[in-house]
Amino acid sequence: MSSSFGEKVKISIFGQSHSEVIGVVIDGLPVGEEIDLAAAQRFLDRRAPGKNAYSTPRKEGDQVRVVSGLFDGKTCGAPICAMIENTNTRSKDYAQLKDMPRPGHADFTAEIKYHGFQDYRGGGHFSGRLTAPLCFAGAVCLQILERRGIHIGAHILSIHEGKDKSFDAVGITKEELAKVIAKEFPTIEDSAAEKMKAIIQNAREGGDSVGGVIESVAVGLPVGIGEPMFDGLESKLSSILFAIPAVKGIEFGEGFGVATLFGSQNNDSFYIEETGAIKTKTNRHGGSLGGISSGMPLVIRTAFKPTPSISKNQATVSLQKGENTVLSVTGRHDPCIVPRAVPCVEAAMAIALLDLYELFK
Amino acid sequence: MSSSFGEKVKISIFGQSHSEVIGVVIDGLPVGEEIDLAAAQRFLDRRAPGKNAYSTPRKEGDQVRVVSGLFDGKTCGAPICAMIENTNTRSKDYAQLKDMPRPGHADFTAEIKYHGFQDYRGGGHFSGRLTAPLCFAGAVCLQILERRGIHIGAHILSIHEGKDKSFDAVGITKEELAKVIAKEFPTIEDSAAEKMKAIIQNAREGGDSVGGVIESVAVGLPVGIGEPMFDGLESKLSSILFAIPAVKGIEFGEGFGVATLFGSQNNDSFYIEETGAIKTKTNRHGGSLGGISSGMPLVIRTAFKPTPSISKNQATVSLQKGENTVLSVTGRHDPCIVPRAVPCVEAAMAIALLDLYELFK
Amino acid sequence: MSSSFGEKVKISIFGQSHSEVIGVVIDGLPVGEEIDLAAAQRFLDRRAPGKNAYSTPRKEGDQVRVVSGLFDGKTCGAPICAMIENTNTRSKDYAQLKDMPRPGHADFTAEIKYHGFQDYRGGGHFSGRLTAPLCFAGAVCLQILERRGIHIGAHILSIHEGKDKSFDAVGITKEELAKVIAKEFPTIEDSAAEKMKAIIQNAREGGDSVGGVIESVAVGLPVGIGEPMFDGLESKLSSILFAIPAVKGIEFGEGFGVATLFGSQNNDSFYIEETGAIKTKTNRHGGSLGGISSGMPLVIRTAFKPTPSISKNQATVSLQKGENTVLSVTGRHDPCIVPRAVPCVEAAMAIALLDLYELFK
Amino acid sequence: MSSSFGEKVKISIFGQSHSEVIGVVIDGLPVGEEIDLAAAQRFLDRRAPGKNAYSTPRKEGDQVRVVSGLFDGKTCGAPICAMIENTNTRSKDYAQLKDMPRPGHADFTAEIKYHGFQDYRGGGHFSGRLTAPLCFAGAVCLQILERRGIHIGAHILSIHEGKDKSFDAVGITKEELAKVIAKEFPTIEDSAAEKMKAIIQNAREGGDSVGGVIESVAVGLPVGIGEPMFDGLESKLSSILFAIPAVKGIEFGEGFGVATLFGSQNNDSFYIEETGAIKTKTNRHGGSLGGISSGMPLVIRTAFKPTPSISKNQATVSLQKGENTVLSVTGRHDPCIVPRAVPCVEAAMAIALLDLYELFK
Repeated sequence: MSSSFGEKVKISIFGQSHSEVIGVVIDGLPVGEEIDLAAAQRFLDRRAPGKNAYSTPRKEGDQVRVVSGLFDGKTCGAPICAMIENTNTRSKDYAQLKDMPRPGHADFTAEIKYHGFQDYRGGGHFSGRLTAPLCFAGAVCLQILERRGIHIGAHILSIHEGKDKSFDAVGITKEELAKVIAKEFPTIEDSAAEKMKAIIQNAREGGDSVGGVIESVAVGLPVGIGEPMFDGLESKLSSILFAIPAVKGIEFGEGFGVATLFGSQNNDSFYIEETGAIKTKTNRHGGSLGGISSGMPLVIRTAFKPTPSISKNQATVSLQKGENTVLSVTGRHDPCIVPRAVPCVEAAMAIALLDLYELFK
Repeated sequence: MSSSFGEKVKISIFGQSHSEVIGVVIDGLPVGEEIDLAAAQRFLDRRAPGKNAYSTPRKEGDQVRVVSGLFDGKTCGAPICAMIENTNTRSKDYAQLKDMPRPGHADFTAEIKYHGFQDYRGGGHFSGRLTAPLCFAGAVCLQILERRGIHIGAHILSIHEGKDKSFDAVGITKEELAKVIAKEFPTIEDSAAEKMKAIIQNAREGGDSVGGVIESVAVGLPVGIGEPMFDGLESKLSSILFAIPAVKGIEFGEGFGVATLFGSQNNDSFYIEETGAIKTKTNRHGGSLGGISSGMPLVIRTAFKPTPSISKNQATVSLQKGENTVLSVTGRHDPCIVPRAVPCVEAAMAIALLDLYELFK
Repeated sequence: MSSSFGEKVKISIFGQSHSEVIGVVIDGLPVGEEIDLAAAQRFLDRRAPGKNAYSTPRKEGDQVRVVSGLFDGKTCGAPICAMIENTNTRSKDYAQLKDMPRPGHADFTAEIKYHGFQDYRGGGHFSGRLTAPLCFAGAVCLQILERRGIHIGAHILSIHEGKDKSFDAVGITKEELAKVIAKEFPTIEDSAAEKMKAIIQNAREGGDSVGGVIESVAVGLPVGIGEPMFDGLESKLSSILFAIPAVKGIEFGEGFGVATLFGSQNNDSFYIEETGAIKTKTNRHGGSLGGISSGMPLVIRTAFKPTPSISKNQATVSLQKGENTVLSVTGRHDPCIVPRAVPCVEAAMAIALLDLYELFK
Repeated sequence: MSSSFGEKVKISIFGQSHSEVIGVVIDGLPVGEEIDLAAAQRFLDRRAPGKNAYSTPRKEGDQVRVVSGLFDGKTCGAPICAMIENTNTRSKDYAQLKDMPRPGHADFTAEIKYHGFQDYRGGGHFSGRLTAPLCFAGAVCLQILERRGIHIGAHILSIHEGKDKSFDAVGITKEELAKVIAKEFPTIEDSAAEKMKAIIQNAREGGDSVGGVIESVAVGLPVGIGEPMFDGLESKLSSILFAIPAVKGIEFGEGFGVATLFGSQNNDSFYIEETGAIKTKTNRHGGSLGGISSGMPLVIRTAFKPTPSISKNQATVSLQKGENTVLSVTGRHDPCIVPRAVPCVEAAMAIALLDLYELFK
C-alpha cells in the first residue's frame, strides 16, 4: 500500500489536498499507552501555515479528531484513526492546473500516471497538506518513544545562503533539543534565524522561493535498533523522509562528506565510559553502523528544494492544446517550506524509529 | 523480512560472509523472460575483487548456480534461486573480532543486537559479500528492463579529491551509458580514472582507505513509474541503496544543491518536443516529480565512506575484558570499495525499478 | 497490520463497536472507476440489523460518508476513506463484561492479550460491527469486478436443521445470483426461508441462538486468477472469510465431502465447448485448481456458529474476584447472525478477488 | 511474494518438482536458538514417500543441506537457507502433460496463467514436492515452539470410510501427541490404521485414489496469541494450510458442526481451576476466540482430496489440437497422500504459530 508505512507499527495516510477529510490510521501501537491529544495537537500546530510573515497566509486550521483506537485515553489494541476536516480550500484557484502542469510539481506525472483521473486540485494526494496526518502520527509515536527515553528534535541548518551551526553530534542532549524545537523559528543561533527570515522575505517579495537543509537528531536510542539490509536505520528512515514532498537528498552522520575522508579520519574509535557503556569519541557514523543504532546520537540531514509554486512566470505546456505556454501560479504559497517541514522530519523519524523499536523489542 | 525487498518483484537474500553458500530468491518476475545467465555472470564479475592493484587480492570466485525458477532458459512463474558457494574464506583471520569490534563496522552493533550469537566472521550477514547475490538479482532485473527500453548505468563521480565530470542529466543516452560501464574503471574521463587509481594506491600504501561518490542514471523510463508517498521513486530507491554497506548519503537530481537555489532556478520548465513528447529543458529534478518518473533521465548520487577495515592501528574496546585496547585489522581488504560498488548501485536500481514498473503496469 | 488485508488492493479497517467512528481505508484501486455510492449504501443496508423479527432490534443506521479518494465520482489514485459515525451505542449495557467474559466471545482473550486495556464495550475491535466497513469496501470492489464480468452472490444454505438446496456449481449464472441476493431473506427455495425464519424465531423465544452455513459463488472469473502457494485462491479467501466473526469452517467445491470420494469420482474431466472454451463437466474442485481459477464457478461454503450472546444463564468467571459466577447477557442481540452475514461473505470475496485480479493483471 | 509466508518469522519457498534444487529461506527467527538438524531431518523423513505399500515407490531422498543462518549450531540473526537437491526425477514421465492437463491438477490453470511458460514437469512449482521445504521450515519452528512449551501433533482422522476416533479436545496432552506422531501410520486406534491401509491398498489395486481428513492440535499455547481480524489464528492458519496441495476444507473446533447447534450448546463455559487458571469445560471453540488463543488446545481438521493422478483413463483435452481426448496418467503416484500430509499439517501450524507468537511477544 503506497500510502502506508511500517511493519509492526503501521500508518496509512488518506486524503487529497481538497478532499473532505485527510487523516491517518495508526495500527500496531503498544497497548496501554496514554496519548496526550492536546500535546499532539500542539506538535501538529508547529507545521501550521499562516503563523507569520515567512509562510503562506492560508489558515489550515488543522484540528485533529481522533475517532477510534483510544479507550480511557490509552491505546487499546485497535487502530487509531485521526481525521482533519478540510475547511479552507479554494478549489477554483487550481482549475487551470489540470491543463497546465506546474514546473517542479507532481501535476504532470500524476496526470499521466492516473490517465487524467488524478485529483489535480492543490496537488491531490501529492500535496504537502498530507504531511498534517503524518505529523499527528509522529506526535503519537514520539510520546511513546519518549516514555522509553528516546527524544527527537530538529533545526533549520540552512536556508539558501543562511547557515546555522550544527548540533554537537557527540554530546547533544534531550534538553538542548527541547530548547531548539521550542523556538518559533528553530535554529540553534538566533542570528541565523534572523538571516534566514530575511532571505525568505526577500524571496517572497521577488515572487520567488528558497530551499534549505534540516538537521535532525534522535538521542537515547539503545544499541541494536534497526534490522539488517533493507530494514536498516538508513533504509527505513530515508524511505519515510523522502515521502515528504520537496526532499531531494538525505545523509547520515558525515554524509556526503565521507567521500573526501580517509578511513583513518572517518572511523570513530570505540572506548569505554566510566559507566561501562561503550561509546565512540567522534560520531561521523551518525549513530548507525550496519544500519543498527550504536547508542550515539542519530544524525540526519535532509535537503529541501525551493517551493515550486512561485508567482514568477514559468514556461510550461498546455496538455489539452499540446503547445508550449506560460504559467503564472496564483494562490497562497510558502516562499520556503523548510520551517514548516521541521516537525514533519521529526514526525517521520518518530514513526520509523518506533516501528523499528517494536520490531526489535 | 529485513533481508527481502520488493512488493511485486521480491528478492530475499541469504547468507553470511563465511556461510557455506550465499544467494538470493527472486519471486514475482514476469514470466516468459529469457535470462542470459552468462551475461548475468559477467555483470556479477564487475564487482569481483582481486582484479587489479586497487582492490583486495582475495579471489572470491563468485560463480552463480541457478537452481530453480527457469524452464527452457525462461522465467516460468516459480521463484528463481541463485546460489554462490563460499569457497575462499579464511575464518581464522576474524577470530579476534568477536572480542574487539572494528571501528566503522557492524561488529559492535550486531554483537549487542544478537546477544552474542552474531556470526562475527567477516561481518556475517552485514558483510559487503552479500552484495554478490544483490548484483545477480539486479542483472536479472536489468535484462528484463532493457527489453522494455530502460537502461541503467553508473560511473565513479569522485574518489577522495579525484573528480570525474557528471553525466549530462538531460541528454545522456543508453549508448553513452554502455560505453562508460564497459570500462574496467568506469569514469567518463579517462584522466579522472588515472587520478583516482593513484589516490587508491596511495591510500593502500599508507595502510589507509578512501571513499567516494557514484553517480547513476536510468534512461528510458516511461512517465508514471513510482507510487505515491512511501513507495515513490526516491523512497524505494533510497531504501535499497542504503542497504549497500558503506552508503552514507543519497541525492536525486540537484540533490543537496537545491538548498541554495531559488525556485525560479530550480524548477525545470516543461516544453513539447516535435514528437509531441513533453520534456523538461533542464533536469534538476533528476527524473522524479512527486516520486513519479517524469520521462527525463533518473539521476542519483550515492556517497560511500572509506573502507573501515584499515591496517593502521585504531582505538577500540575489548568486549570481554571491558577495557580500552588497540586493534590492527589484518586480512585482505579493499582500500576503496567504490569501484566494486558501481555494479551494486546499478543492480539495486534495477531491482527497485522493475518492482515499481511491474506494480504500475 | 492485522486489521489490513491485501497486497495490491488493500483495505485497512478501523474502529471499535463503540468508538466515535468506524471505517475503512481502501488503497490501490484501479483509477477512473466510477463508484455508485448509493448502490454501495444499498449493499451495506443488506447487513443492517433491525429490519425484521429475526434480527436484533438495534438500529445501527450505517450511513457511509466517503471523505477521500473519489474525484468527480471516480477513483483517482488516492486512497478512499469511508466512515460510519456510531450513533446508537449503549455503553452501559456492557459495563459488567470487563469483569465477566461472555462464553464464546473474544472478551476473555482480548482482555488478557491487551493486559486489561481492551475496549471491552460491545466487543471493541472484535465486534461484528466492524463488518460494516468490510461490507462497504466489498461493495466498492464488487462494482469494479462486475465491470470486468465477475459477479458474486451468496445464499443461506442452512440454519440449524433448516436446509436450502445448493447452487448448481456448474451452471449457475449471474442472473440467478442476482435473483437470490435480491431476496430479503436470501435462499433459493422460499420454503427454506420460511422454515429458517421459524427456527430463528423459536431460538429467540427460547433465549437461545442458532448457527448456519452460507454458500457463495463467484462467476465470470477468467482462468488464471490466484497466485501460487500462500496467495492461492483458497488461502486468500479463507484468510479474509475467517476474519468475519463466528466463522468456524470454510470449504471449497466438494469440501469435506472429498474425504469420502475416490479420485475417479472427484476429478472433474476437462472438455472443449463449441466456443473453444475449456470447461469441466462437473465442478467438485469448486473453481480452483492449484489455488488458481479454472474458469468454472468458484464455490465456497462458510460455517457460522450460533451467536454467543444469549439471554440464557451461562457459567463464566469473575476476573476481578477470581471466582466462578453466572452471567446473563442482556442487550440487543441477533438470535442468528447468518442472514446478516450474507453480504459480509460476498464483500470479503469481492475484496480478495479484486486484489488477486489486480495482482494477476 | 506468493511463495513466502509470515510477518515476523518469514519463509520463502523456491523450486519446482524437477528443478535442480528445492528449498526454503527462513528469516526472522529468534536468535540463539539451537537447531537440531538431525531431528529436523527425521521430521522431514516422516513425509518421505517410498516407505511402504501405501505410498508411491519413488525414493525422494530428501536430504536437507543447511547452507546459511546457523553459527555454532544456533540461529544467529541471518536467514537460514535449506536446500534439497532433486536427484530422482524422471522428466520424461511428464512430457505429455504440457498438452493434456490432468483432471484435478494445476496443469491447466498454470499453463493458462503463465502463457505456456509454466514448468509443467511434475506440476512445477505447484507440486506436492514443495511441501518438503515446508516441512523442514516447520521442523525448525517446532523446535523453537517446544522450548516455549508449545507442542503440535496430528493424526489421520479418516481415509474414505475408515475412521479414527478424535483427540480429546479438552484434555489432550503433549505426551499423547508424541505417542501418536511416533507411529508409522499415525492414528489413535491401531485398528483404524489397519482399516485405512486396506482402503488405500484397494484403491491402488483399482488404479484409483482416496482422500481423508487430518486432525491436528497445538497444546501449551498461552492466552493471547493471534492478532485481530485478518491476522487471527484461523486466518493465518487457514492461509498456510490451504497452501498444501489437495486441501479443500478447514475447520476449527466444532467446525461445520456448529451450524446445527444452539448457542447454549456451542458456547464453552469458563471456570477457574484450582491453579487460578481460567479454562473452558468443553472446547467446541477449538482454542480460538476472536482469532486469539484461549489457552485451550487448538483443534483443526483439514480435508484432503483423493490424489488426482490415477491410472484409470480420464477424459481431458489436448490443448494443442483443441480437441477432447483421453488421458492415462503413468508415473509413480500415491493412491492417498493423507499419511504423508500429516507432518505437512504439523509443519504449517508450527510456522504460523511461531510467527504469531513472535508478533505477540
